[in-house]
Amino acid sequence: MAGDKVVLLDTHVSAFGMRVRIALAEKGIEHEYKEENLADKSPLLLEMNRVHKKIPVLIHNGKPVCESLIIVQYIDEVWHDKNPLLPSDPYQRAQARFWADFVDKKLYDAGWRLWATKGEEQEAAKKELIGTVKTLEAELGDKTYFGGEDFGYVDVALIPFYNWFYTYETCGNFKIECPKLVEWAKRCMQRETVSKSLADPHKIYEFVVSLKKKFGIE
Amino acid sequence: MAGDKVVLLDTHVSAFGMRVRIALAEKGIEHEYKEENLADKSPLLLEMNRVHKKIPVLIHNGKPVCESLIIVQYIDEVWHDKNPLLPSDPYQRAQARFWADFVDKKLYDAGWRLWATKGEEQEAAKKELIGTVKTLEAELGDKTYFGGEDFGYVDVALIPFYNWFYTYETCGNFKIECPKLVEWAKRCMQRETVSKSLADPHKIYEFVVSLKKKFGIE
Repeated sequence: MAGDKVVLLDTHVSAFGMRVRIALAEKGIEHEYKEENLADKSPLLLEMNRVHKKIPVLIHNGKPVCESLIIVQYIDEVWHDKNPLLPSDPYQRAQARFWADFVDKKLYDAGWRLWATKGEEQEAAKKELIGTVKTLEAELGDKTYFGGEDFGYVDVALIPFYNWFYTYETCGNFKIECPKLVEWAKRCMQRETVSKSLADPHKIYEFVVSLKKKFGIE
Repeated sequence: MAGDKVVLLDTHVSAFGMRVRIALAEKGIEHEYKEENLADKSPLLLEMNRVHKKIPVLIHNGKPVCESLIIVQYIDEVWHDKNPLLPSDPYQRAQARFWADFVDKKLYDAGWRLWATKGEEQEAAKKELIGTVKTLEAELGDKTYFGGEDFGYVDVALIPFYNWFYTYETCGNFKIECPKLVEWAKRCMQRETVSKSLADPHKIYEFVVSLKKKFGIE
């Protein structure tokens, strides 16, 4: 809305941050982007997210909203006139929330264990990730997007993690077979709102390599 | 709505299940309650929640909704005329979602580690739980309910876990100091929708003792 001041505290490679960037782009919301250094968080981040002290944080007219899926819902509710992300039907909304939550509970968790652990733990994460991806492929089926014909909430929740697959695969030295997701991702990437919001997968990998070095994970 | 068929697959001591029971009671929704034995799940549960295979599941006119907070939001959206649980203002909604999510991320996690682990791990869970409860007390402050004057979403999310405090305290042999939450819980319990939906804390403890025996945790 005209006159609104919107600030995003974010980190370029964050999948959670990418979700918010996509939602802001879908709605065409002008905003100030502030890159956070997670090794030296700004006083503003610590003040705006006192509980979790994590990015992303959306600051709308001085008031913070935290947690990526909650921010995306907030954006969708406040700027409801353009490109709705959640379906209007309550049952479809519940389904969309279920799958976005599934991404957070399953994909994120297996994903970070893939680069942050090794040996048996890493193998278990690999197996879990493959199972999770299979479940997502089955849910997508032959639909254009997760919600049907229109790009929406589950797509916003998932595409940033798909963007991390290159890092998962390289760290785990394996290949994630997901032909339907590959085609879906291509469709998503045709949207400028998505392509301009995602980080370069090689930059994500470089970031993870630097983290691994820092924490002594070889 | 008249003519609707609502079935709840649940387990009496489940804090997640209690949330759904409270929401159904707040809305006055007639439903069939089906107790699940988690050691021997019914074919209906396995069919209705193929992904997580967990209770609670709300089956509304044959269609399942899973994950307690998603179910509570679904109930609030479908039966929106009576006792709204989420605030109508988008910012307040985001705040309510944040705190309900906080309960899931912090309280549940520390809670189960309190009874399922011992030694250092249990001590760490105890410390974490105390910190989490302090954060919740600070957020509640002098308000009647988490959302202000009216019983709502965060109260529905939290009161079933408060109902587990007796078990946490007994298993951890410590006392959770939370005078403001104690008074808040008394107010919640004055609502019949809450008091009739919660399990007897001693029954919860007995259930946990039986689980500990089963899994060899002394």
